[in-house]
Amino acid sequence: MMDSESTNKDCLGWAARDPTGVLSPYNFTRRALGSDDVSFTITHCGICYADVIWSRNGLGDSKYPLVPGHEIVGIVKEVGSNVQRFKVGDHVGVGTYVNSCRDCEYCNDGLEVHCVKGSVFTFNGIDADGTVTKGGYSSYIVVHERYCFMIPNNYPLASAAPLLCAGITVYSPMMRHKMNQPGKSLGVIGLGGLGHMAVKFGKAFGLNVTVISTSNSKKEEALNQLGADKFVLSSDPDQMKILAKSLDFIVDSASGDHPFDPYLSLLKVAGVYVLVGFPSEVKFSPTSLAIGAKTVAGSITGGTKETQEMLDFCAAKKIYPKIEIVPIQYANEAIERLIKRDVKYRFVIDIENSLK
Amino acid sequence: MMDSESTNKDCLGWAARDPTGVLSPYNFTRRALGSDDVSFTITHCGICYADVIWSRNGLGDSKYPLVPGHEIVGIVKEVGSNVQRFKVGDHVGVGTYVNSCRDCEYCNDGLEVHCVKGSVFTFNGIDADGTVTKGGYSSYIVVHERYCFMIPNNYPLASAAPLLCAGITVYSPMMRHKMNQPGKSLGVIGLGGLGHMAVKFGKAFGLNVTVISTSNSKKEEALNQLGADKFVLSSDPDQMKILAKSLDFIVDSASGDHPFDPYLSLLKVAGVYVLVGFPSEVKFSPTSLAIGAKTVAGSITGGTKETQEMLDFCAAKKIYPKIEIVPIQYANEAIERLIKRDVKYRFVIDIENSLK
Repeated sequence: MMDSESTNKDCLGWAARDPTGVLSPYNFTRRALGSDDVSFTITHCGICYADVIWSRNGLGDSKYPLVPGHEIVGIVKEVGSNVQRFKVGDHVGVGTYVNSCRDCEYCNDGLEVHCVKGSVFTFNGIDADGTVTKGGYSSYIVVHERYCFMIPNNYPLASAAPLLCAGITVYSPMMRHKMNQPGKSLGVIGLGGLGHMAVKFGKAFGLNVTVISTSNSKKEEALNQLGADKFVLSSDPDQMKILAKSLDFIVDSASGDHPFDPYLSLLKVAGVYVLVGFPSEVKFSPTSLAIGAKTVAGSITGGTKETQEMLDFCAAKKIYPKIEIVPIQYANEAIERLIKRDVKYRFVIDIENSLK
Repeated sequence: MMDSESTNKDCLGWAARDPTGVLSPYNFTRRALGSDDVSFTITHCGICYADVIWSRNGLGDSKYPLVPGHEIVGIVKEVGSNVQRFKVGDHVGVGTYVNSCRDCEYCNDGLEVHCVKGSVFTFNGIDADGTVTKGGYSSYIVVHERYCFMIPNNYPLASAAPLLCAGITVYSPMMRHKMNQPGKSLGVIGLGGLGHMAVKFGKAFGLNVTVISTSNSKKEEALNQLGADKFVLSSDPDQMKILAKSLDFIVDSASGDHPFDPYLSLLKVAGVYVLVGFPSEVKFSPTSLAIGAKTVAGSITGGTKETQEMLDFCAAKKIYPKIEIVPIQYANEAIERLIKRDVKYRFVIDIENSLK
């Protein structure tokens, strides 16, 4: 006779056990399906830099065993009695948070990521019932329908995964700062998981997109693979000079430390610089902002309303992240490569076919 | 018989002769009235920190003799044949610039301060004819009518002077960032020439205004003289904690170096932080912007359209800067006091009654 504990551990995942961050198979329990919950079989999960940070206790708050992953997609296998928006068989996804107070001004506006009481992160978070949340490097997940998104049927599930963090992180500030104005100009700094989405959204919005990079090796892919209009090598003063005061918007996705004044000088009057990366600090001269009345803005993912809107937009405009699909057995190596920025542009784990 | 040179030097001013910045009487020539020009007798001129900077060659580009002053008001004495907007006897003013290309997208939008070819500063600038501009510490000025503003008749001329730099520098970003929404909350950092105007505009816009200061000595004046709703001592962690995440807007007018992260933490989600001071650098953690999707914006005076709008708004709402009127003979001492921040809140030189 099996004991009840082992029979309940029907969710198979891969977890980090300590700050080395090394991932290995791990069986655990998901909560029973509640009346407002959706339970879905995970088919794919993107690998986000957040997975690296928390697997390795980068912020000192990691709770082990830790199952990472917050770019989760799959197919509904069960829904609670109150669930209206989803049915068995639907393609769905979950992003960076799985709960919030549902009662504050931000939750009421569909901006749950800004919940006054704090949204509950999809992994390593403390849920309302006190349990530690576990992410998408696992066979299935149970989530309140509010935090579950519909993936349009014609959209490949694997490609949808990175939209749920990288995609919305870029889309949200681009929309908030009105970058969807055809004919305007956008500079994109950094060409990783976030930056390449900024190029794709920029083109879909009808913008003239310039990729600004420290490495000429990005030129061919920026222009020919991602469809950017222009490429500028930031270390070349002549190229930078030509670009001076010419951009309406900049999306800076570079996470390494870098100066800001040279990039701010590329903005037109009233230009907007959106920072989506996390360098160790932001530092510039007040003159860089004052002359030309410029703006620097930050952002962090988005609410449920705009996340669904972004998914629908990507399906309608046929915007697909560039991904490298890997089996779960490759996760540790993929994370090492991600740290070395050796990925174009997002790893997606094929949970469905490799996690057994 | 007088020589022609001395007869032409009919404009009496006070000028700095070298980087000591010491001001003394100086006779010079203004250009002859052109068909689009307004010539006006100067009655008052505000003392702005810019006067200190350029009198003392702070940026290494000062051209001596240098006549400072760019908060200039007076009474029209002559107008050119094409001038439509002004007539003799009108109360008028000139701010920080006296010319621009009048042909670029910004000039065409009434945003001459952002002129593609650069606006011509009111003093120490190189005008279209190659001459060095001379400011308002002088008996009269000749200016193209485009850069001349109407001071409403019911508005005291002395009070109008500081509006032309300090006033518009604060009003312009407050309007651009939509701070004129009654019921919203504004924090004002720094209570000098700019900061005290931010409090006054904030109250006129119907905002709930909190003054945030490093010194409790500002409390009484903030609350009782300027009409702020609240006062918070920035060095008191308890007071700062209560204010956390509570402000829609912040206007930071502090020119001394100070940390930014503690102040950014006072903003609500999507809060806007406008910087109008000039510390040596701006430095903060990207997290301070990202969490809550906040914005930091810079600004520098405003265009002619909004400057006139601001003057009319101040007259309609009876907004008056707090000024200390001094004779021109006190200018050197006033500048010393300004450097020590010993002024509430703007010196205005009584040119009319003291410059002879």
